[in-house]
Amino acid sequence: MKKYKIAVIPGDGIGNEVTAEGVKVLDTFAALKGDIHFDYEYFPWGCEYYLKTGNMMDPNGLKILKDFDAILLGAVGYPSVPDHISLHGLLLKIRQGFNQSVNLRPIKLLPGAPCPLKDKRPEDIDFIVVRENVEGEYAGVGGVRFADRPEEIALQTAVFTRKNTEKIMEYAFQLARKRNKYKKVTNVTKSNALNYSMVFWDKIFTEQAENYRDIITETHHVDAVTMYFLQKPETYDVLVASNLFGDIITDLGAALQGGLGFAASGNLNLEKEYPSMFEPVHGSAPDLAGKQVANPIAMIWTVKMLLDHLLEDCDTERITEAITEILLEGKTLTPDLKGTAKTHEVGDAVCERLKRLL
Amino acid sequence: MKKYKIAVIPGDGIGNEVTAEGVKVLDTFAALKGDIHFDYEYFPWGCEYYLKTGNMMDPNGLKILKDFDAILLGAVGYPSVPDHISLHGLLLKIRQGFNQSVNLRPIKLLPGAPCPLKDKRPEDIDFIVVRENVEGEYAGVGGVRFADRPEEIALQTAVFTRKNTEKIMEYAFQLARKRNKYKKVTNVTKSNALNYSMVFWDKIFTEQAENYRDIITETHHVDAVTMYFLQKPETYDVLVASNLFGDIITDLGAALQGGLGFAASGNLNLEKEYPSMFEPVHGSAPDLAGKQVANPIAMIWTVKMLLDHLLEDCDTERITEAITEILLEGKTLTPDLKGTAKTHEVGDAVCERLKRLL
Ligand SMILES: CC(C)[C@H](C(=O)O)[C@@H](O)C(=O)O
Ligand SMILES: CC(C)[C@H](C(=O)O)[C@@H](O)C(=O)O
Repeated sequence: MKKYKIAVIPGDGIGNEVTAEGVKVLDTFAALKGDIHFDYEYFPWGCEYYLKTGNMMDPNGLKILKDFDAILLGAVGYPSVPDHISLHGLLLKIRQGFNQSVNLRPIKLLPGAPCPLKDKRPEDIDFIVVRENVEGEYAGVGGVRFADRPEEIALQTAVFTRKNTEKIMEYAFQLARKRNKYKKVTNVTKSNALNYSMVFWDKIFTEQAENYRDIITETHHVDAVTMYFLQKPETYDVLVASNLFGDIITDLGAALQGGLGFAASGNLNLEKEYPSMFEPVHGSAPDLAGKQVANPIAMIWTVKMLLDHLLEDCDTERITEAITEILLEGKTLTPDLKGTAKTHEVGDAVCERLKRLL
Repeated sequence: MKKYKIAVIPGDGIGNEVTAEGVKVLDTFAALKGDIHFDYEYFPWGCEYYLKTGNMMDPNGLKILKDFDAILLGAVGYPSVPDHISLHGLLLKIRQGFNQSVNLRPIKLLPGAPCPLKDKRPEDIDFIVVRENVEGEYAGVGGVRFADRPEEIALQTAVFTRKNTEKIMEYAFQLARKRNKYKKVTNVTKSNALNYSMVFWDKIFTEQAENYRDIITETHHVDAVTMYFLQKPETYDVLVASNLFGDIITDLGAALQGGLGFAASGNLNLEKEYPSMFEPVHGSAPDLAGKQVANPIAMIWTVKMLLDHLLEDCDTERITEAITEILLEGKTLTPDLKGTAKTHEVGDAVCERLKRLL
């Protein structure tokens, strides 16, 4: 029996409801497998906690989370708490504090999910973005001078280190090797205009490519990538992108796969010195909270990524298959997918299928 | 008779062929109007010129261009000339040297143009992006330290000045006032992560909005904007974005309106101290050059923008109407639009229609 300790941070709004379904699927998966067990500890951190305590998480939060095997996060955000507080006090703090240097985001259109593109089918939309997650444009370096005077100036400095850049590119190449597609990595850049950071980025990409001669490489500017996502998504396999570019293209990618209701992500600490964190990309949607109308599919997919991270070769594809069956059947869907099912009914339905599939 | 002096830089590859059609439409328009005349001077600058002379343009280029009423640019780029040379030596030099602080890009789906989205119609895709064009992320400030050593680090600093930021936001508000749509400006930001530059950007936006109380405002993060372009493009009117964000979302926008074959742009010097420059967004496509297969529609639309800039209230809508008629008829289209017409035949067809429409 393998035991794993999972820290659960449901967060705010619909975070609570979707997290419950994620945990349900985790437990069902473990029970069906027989040789795995998950222990959970729940942390009531987030904006509600902030309004009570003045902190988004326990000041010792990172120390408390350090020894868990993984973190499962619901969603964070509240209308009355400024974004930069809720993000910097929790999400970005964990990403950076635990050196979760890769943000991994699969973009895959499941059969039955609503795609906005005319001529593309599920097999055309199936790639994955390796996003840099701890530095780059989000380094937080900069300043404002001559505030509120006519000569006021604001500076924001993107910071790229060789060590981290090499690491995430290596990860992308290895992922391309493992995936069963083109064995290709697309370098997302903008070196024609960003003459230091992205020229450096391209240099590291070219260097790393030398070590992976079996992998096909290509380099596309980020502006072109957004266009190609619509025109020829079928040509992509693995994309490697900076923090900001990865953020932008994965939101666009989410739209391709049916919206944020399908967007899962993992924040990976590659050295496994610290826990990795898994979260659906969607927000806390306070207006939907407490009504059991939120779509838990992104969270259930996120749980699949958590399983992939902790276990090896473990039939987790059955989880996406279960989701696909439900989509194709069309009976147990939440209102965003034009259904009338409750959040917990979708979770139950996925678990039912899993019992048949596993 | 009003006379205008136009500097024409056809540039490389298909730049030559599409520019010829642009000039044809300009002349036809002038002849039909009767009271306008254009004088052209051609400059053979670009990558070919660079390979011969070592410069992308005459070293006195800016001085030579200074007194023209406008610049019409075809396309620049050659496989054997690195991007950063061809761009910094010509395109970016003119944009920045002539303080063309706004890059204006209409995103409009013409009836008959191929849109990749399932559920959107021409009336749903009709907005315009005001892109900052001389500073921001493209300021060119930064450096690399400890080159090729393990501790190597690259920095790229975005620079935003109050003066320029105010100016382009004012322009956006005034444009929203003039347009016949929602009277709305969307601020494209990423202030939840870019804690100096975009927080400053938002502040200036809020300040300027105070002076335009008749205009509706909204603020969207750039990642969400890319998603909304697919999900609810009909909600946009005018968007104001930084140099990099504007670059990204307008390429995505180009895909929505049928591809780069439809993407026109103007680089505007708002003070009218220097000439403004008009260019289709597409590249020089060397593989298509010389075959009369390039689609000249983006260039013809660009010429419409040039006319809008020089003249007031001047029936230039007839040009987009002429293009639309040709698209709907479907007989005179280039191969990218699944037709067999030559580049010059499309130009001729637009001029024919103009004669009937004007
Ligand atoms: C909330 C925001 C800071 C965050 C990001 O840009 O990283 C989000 O958009 C995401 O993609 O996880
Ligand atoms: C070629 C490049 C520097 C340019 C830009 O990003 O400004 C182009 O993409 C554009 O949009 O005009």
